[in-house]
Amino acid sequence: MLFYNKYRYNIVKKRINACVKLLKASSWDALLVSDPVNVAYLAGFNSPGGYLLITKSADLLYFTNFLYIQAASKISLWKPVITNGRNIFTLIAEWADKVNLNRIGFEAKHLPFLEYETVREKCALKGISLSPTRDFIAKLRMLKSSQEIALIKKSVSISKEAFEFVKEIRGGGMTEKDLGIEIERFLRLKGDNQLAFNPIVAAGANSSFPHHEPGDNKIGNKCVLIDLGSKYCGYCADLTRVYFEGKISTLFKKIYDIVRKAQELSIRKIRDGVAAAAVDKTAREYIDKRGWGKYFGHGLGHGVGLAVHEPPFLNSKTQEILQEGTVITVEPAIYLPNKFGVRIEDMVVVRRKKGEML
Amino acid sequence: MLFYNKYRYNIVKKRINACVKLLKASSWDALLVSDPVNVAYLAGFNSPGGYLLITKSADLLYFTNFLYIQAASKISLWKPVITNGRNIFTLIAEWADKVNLNRIGFEAKHLPFLEYETVREKCALKGISLSPTRDFIAKLRMLKSSQEIALIKKSVSISKEAFEFVKEIRGGGMTEKDLGIEIERFLRLKGDNQLAFNPIVAAGANSSFPHHEPGDNKIGNKCVLIDLGSKYCGYCADLTRVYFEGKISTLFKKIYDIVRKAQELSIRKIRDGVAAAAVDKTAREYIDKRGWGKYFGHGLGHGVGLAVHEPPFLNSKTQEILQEGTVITVEPAIYLPNKFGVRIEDMVVVRRKKGEML
Repeated sequence: MLFYNKYRYNIVKKRINACVKLLKASSWDALLVSDPVNVAYLAGFNSPGGYLLITKSADLLYFTNFLYIQAASKISLWKPVITNGRNIFTLIAEWADKVNLNRIGFEAKHLPFLEYETVREKCALKGISLSPTRDFIAKLRMLKSSQEIALIKKSVSISKEAFEFVKEIRGGGMTEKDLGIEIERFLRLKGDNQLAFNPIVAAGANSSFPHHEPGDNKIGNKCVLIDLGSKYCGYCADLTRVYFEGKISTLFKKIYDIVRKAQELSIRKIRDGVAAAAVDKTAREYIDKRGWGKYFGHGLGHGVGLAVHEPPFLNSKTQEILQEGTVITVEPAIYLPNKFGVRIEDMVVVRRKKGEML
Repeated sequence: MLFYNKYRYNIVKKRINACVKLLKASSWDALLVSDPVNVAYLAGFNSPGGYLLITKSADLLYFTNFLYIQAASKISLWKPVITNGRNIFTLIAEWADKVNLNRIGFEAKHLPFLEYETVREKCALKGISLSPTRDFIAKLRMLKSSQEIALIKKSVSISKEAFEFVKEIRGGGMTEKDLGIEIERFLRLKGDNQLAFNPIVAAGANSSFPHHEPGDNKIGNKCVLIDLGSKYCGYCADLTRVYFEGKISTLFKKIYDIVRKAQELSIRKIRDGVAAAAVDKTAREYIDKRGWGKYFGHGLGHGVGLAVHEPPFLNSKTQEILQEGTVITVEPAIYLPNKFGVRIEDMVVVRRKKGEML
């Protein structure tokens, strides 16, 4: 469940209202929501295999199958429509016709081609057209309420505790996988049963792979990169730390300091109204000027909320402007192939005049 | 990693050859593979964010970004094409042009509409057309090699051990979530770091939700449904058991026996060449005749391999014929709302003259 019950109704109601308002200002009569994170955002609980149809007249339909029949009956705001063996897209088209829709938007980044084709066909039979939307709900999700920020803060604090826990149990004799399993267990016991993502534990040269999967190799006397994140009431955290088992090498120390400073400088840039590309540029230029630019091959960060990676994305090409209430990661890095990688990742709330480090 | 290195090359080579053979017999010059499980199947390692282009002349291109640059260089069979900040679909179109393709198939069940539109547009500029395929690789994956079956057997045996482990640690004082966490830890320590899926632990009335997420409620003196599955070298297991804390109720015993018998009868039906719908019917009729049919709302089972749910799907509507070497679940169930649910799930290899229970 995403929220404690006492909050859920009001929070979800507010989101639905915001979505209806957007629809009224748009050229669509309704939005077909298929991305499970967006379904969770608007319906208030996690539901694989469910579709929402929300209209500008605030008709709220939740389509699902037998597997979720009891769960569906718990959402009082949405009318559940159970497939009972019928094609879910036929049902969507029938209901769209029943509530007199002409033009439905769908989530182009998420809906697979085959589902699009099926629902398009079924709707065409009723004279209803379908057209792609991009980031319709994502734009709502980008601006977090104070309740959402409180949940993210809690998730970050659990994840920080996990790093303290690592300090207690760490040792070169453990394998990456063993340490990863202990971290997962810790995060699940303190937060949601689901994690934001499977922790990355990368020792030595493995840390130069940005998305290494923990292996059966012993950690040994090497640098260790750990990227972890819990969920709390559905809200994600995403933090990365690196440390050294044994004596720290001079090169490692040097790279670490550059990455740390790049992070510090870019965080100072963050405020409402600043271009995401400018924040990325600050870190990138600092690393570039010191000669390590080509080893920082990904963007500086990304939004975090119900999804661990969500808009806005901070990179050199984005047109995005950071807005108050957005939560982002700042994670500059330098990856030296066959040697090691250093990534330092923290989370920041965009405030009116500054970035608030979580 | 999906396979031990020593096996990987030959196994992957065989799959690629089978795919090229299918392409040669088809109207497509090449297949664009976007489903990560299919990418893993053909490339030999797990790669989020990667696309394969395989042609009927056996050109093998692997498109990915900076995050996976080092991982990509490990696959000797596929030529890695790294985006380096360029649009991945532009690169795909350029390469398709370079190797003289006219008609590319894409995975309609997986490719999101927006990606389809983008790659279609980029390809159209080069005079290359794009058209949907369904289950192109899935059909190859359905028939397991003896090595694959051996890996699935190992995964099933780890998962069975987990049930033994549950017997040791179980108790009404634990919460569903606590028990779930211990199961996950066990499965990860014995098998891959990834699980087939997050275990379901459902006590009492919660077991009447087919896909319940473990909660903070104590298990108490109730029936407990546990659905769990490890992965081993990428291969999934999927098993469900129910047991009772405290005294078993008469109704529970009765329902349990019906489900168990339905499973037994339907497993006896399994052999090469039998209709999947006929196997489903055997269990469904048995349950139906005893008056519980409306409480068995889902299909009897599904294929299992690199994905925990894959073709063939066993239900009343499918046209699928079971083939030798396919691995499926058999999981009849009766869910009594607000009371309890009983599902018994085992895995079976389809053999020439019978189903071999794993």
